[in-house]
Amino acid sequence: MGGIANQAAEQTVGQLSETELLKLILPRLRGNATALLGPGDDAAILAAPDGRTVVSIDTQVQDQDFRLEWNNGYASTGFDVGWKSAAQNLSDINAMGAVPTGLVLSLTMPPQTPVSWVLDLADGLSAAISELGADRCVVAGGDLSAGAELVITAAVLGDLEGREAVRRGGGAPGDQLAVAGVLGRAAAGWALLEGSQPVSSLDAEMLALIDYFRCPRPPLSAGPMAAQCGATAMLDISDGLVRDATRLAKASGVQIDLDPAALGAFVEELQPAAHFLKQDPLAWVLGGGEDHGLLCTFAADTVLPAGFTAIGSVRSKAETTIAGITDWVTVAGQRSSTVGWDHFAD
Amino acid sequence: MGGIANQAAEQTVGQLSETELLKLILPRLRGNATALLGPGDDAAILAAPDGRTVVSIDTQVQDQDFRLEWNNGYASTGFDVGWKSAAQNLSDINAMGAVPTGLVLSLTMPPQTPVSWVLDLADGLSAAISELGADRCVVAGGDLSAGAELVITAAVLGDLEGREAVRRGGGAPGDQLAVAGVLGRAAAGWALLEGSQPVSSLDAEMLALIDYFRCPRPPLSAGPMAAQCGATAMLDISDGLVRDATRLAKASGVQIDLDPAALGAFVEELQPAAHFLKQDPLAWVLGGGEDHGLLCTFAADTVLPAGFTAIGSVRSKAETTIAGITDWVTVAGQRSSTVGWDHFAD
Repeated sequence: MGGIANQAAEQTVGQLSETELLKLILPRLRGNATALLGPGDDAAILAAPDGRTVVSIDTQVQDQDFRLEWNNGYASTGFDVGWKSAAQNLSDINAMGAVPTGLVLSLTMPPQTPVSWVLDLADGLSAAISELGADRCVVAGGDLSAGAELVITAAVLGDLEGREAVRRGGGAPGDQLAVAGVLGRAAAGWALLEGSQPVSSLDAEMLALIDYFRCPRPPLSAGPMAAQCGATAMLDISDGLVRDATRLAKASGVQIDLDPAALGAFVEELQPAAHFLKQDPLAWVLGGGEDHGLLCTFAADTVLPAGFTAIGSVRSKAETTIAGITDWVTVAGQRSSTVGWDHFAD
Repeated sequence: MGGIANQAAEQTVGQLSETELLKLILPRLRGNATALLGPGDDAAILAAPDGRTVVSIDTQVQDQDFRLEWNNGYASTGFDVGWKSAAQNLSDINAMGAVPTGLVLSLTMPPQTPVSWVLDLADGLSAAISELGADRCVVAGGDLSAGAELVITAAVLGDLEGREAVRRGGGAPGDQLAVAGVLGRAAAGWALLEGSQPVSSLDAEMLALIDYFRCPRPPLSAGPMAAQCGATAMLDISDGLVRDATRLAKASGVQIDLDPAALGAFVEELQPAAHFLKQDPLAWVLGGGEDHGLLCTFAADTVLPAGFTAIGSVRSKAETTIAGITDWVTVAGQRSSTVGWDHFAD
């Protein structure tokens, strides 16, 4: 059996039938012990013990969300893409205060895609679910298609365990603003991959930044914990701190002021890479996407849960507007020069 | 507002921000009155009243699952693609005996895609949900990406309403085999689109076949009804009767014999198109995919529910093998020359 599997891994997906390919992929996906019904039927069945299901969908497209080959010579592995697909989807469930229960995956692949690349993707997906601590999350099913480029879509479901969901719009003047997870690390890793310096010239600290970009680590226990501790608003920082803080501010109708001093530790750890690339580490912290930390507001008298750092204040939109501040988000009272990951105008 | 929307509809998606595009799409999606939380946050929340959620995911890729321009000159509209995306996903929930409760959508589009095409897709998606009778199903959220080609993925959730799911593997020797919905109609429509005769040369009956291929109508009440009436096995006929019957036979460990006489009504309605194209209508009925009817087995003494037609018998695999029949599915005891929609060998 191992021999047959190894032989198949050297082939391309176009050389196998869908059934043959599924037989190789399924054993690598995280076991479905907690699924009421796993892959193999028209649909899967997951438990929804509190009578509600949280659901989100997210897609990665080749040459848009990842490059098969980066400027510095690094080639994205299937493992990287599988890990990130799981991580960014699990993060959306985390950001509601819920616990992931299952994921369904759709893979569109050119026929010349190596089977080994796809199996590596399945491994990355399962590794992320397991290493990020999404213990209740199973890969419940999927769909394979042929296409001109790689497109990976995952839909993920979650359980609120009886809690109220934490939305974006509940922040109020006087609240504390806090983050869990990291800021700017993925952006620094991305800058290193897009740089001209080969991987061999990078030290361990810089390689770790690339690793974070490849395999981000959303703090999956922080979302439910923030919900339990009464977070008033919460969202996943996927497009950069300023941009995502703007979303929270608009949804809540508040103005947010970020405290640069409180961001110091995040900036500090990026200094060596920033120095190496002659870039501004604060720009990565304020504008870098794909870290998948959480941005939350808590009432002023709430003791922040473990893992959260206070990084700013929440003010009345009306009062700051009267005071002449038109931006939804400022940094020490000033307009930020960095608005973040921005495919389009916003 | 109408003026602005009309102006935007003449643009391409690359000319709008994601936020602007969402503002145009969201009002066209089926209202989220029954969603506990609709689009706009990191994830949506749907009710799962019986403590379980059925989930499936399915993708359509340009030039694989649909052509923007067909051989006979017809151009697939956004409406067609949106309708089919909803229909094929809703059908997977139907095939478990469940009722669709919500759908999340991921759209990958080249920047030059006309905004009007995308809005038309949203209309088609909503129209299918509504016209097919999925009254509890809402479009709960989605994701927009740029890419080289159109890729449309929907994940759909369903509620079993306290019933047991009907799987593929419960068929037993002596059961009746029955279908709900149509057989071969989509294949005939596909053959007309791929033919060289322009649309203007086709009569109303043939245009209706193209319409069925464009906008298939899975019988959404039939799945829950079959479950209520004790169907022993069920699946969605998406890849052709013989191919999907083979799946049911393998999962159930039985042999299935189709009765060509019982398929007569399905063949009969395709005769004019078959004559016109000089093709065999029985091949469409046995091998044509994308009709999205249901194939079920019922115990011998079950009165078939309304909408189901008996089309064959379920036999012991061991006994038929001893009798020299090696095929999982036969037609009047003989090997079928048509195995169905088959991207790959199987």
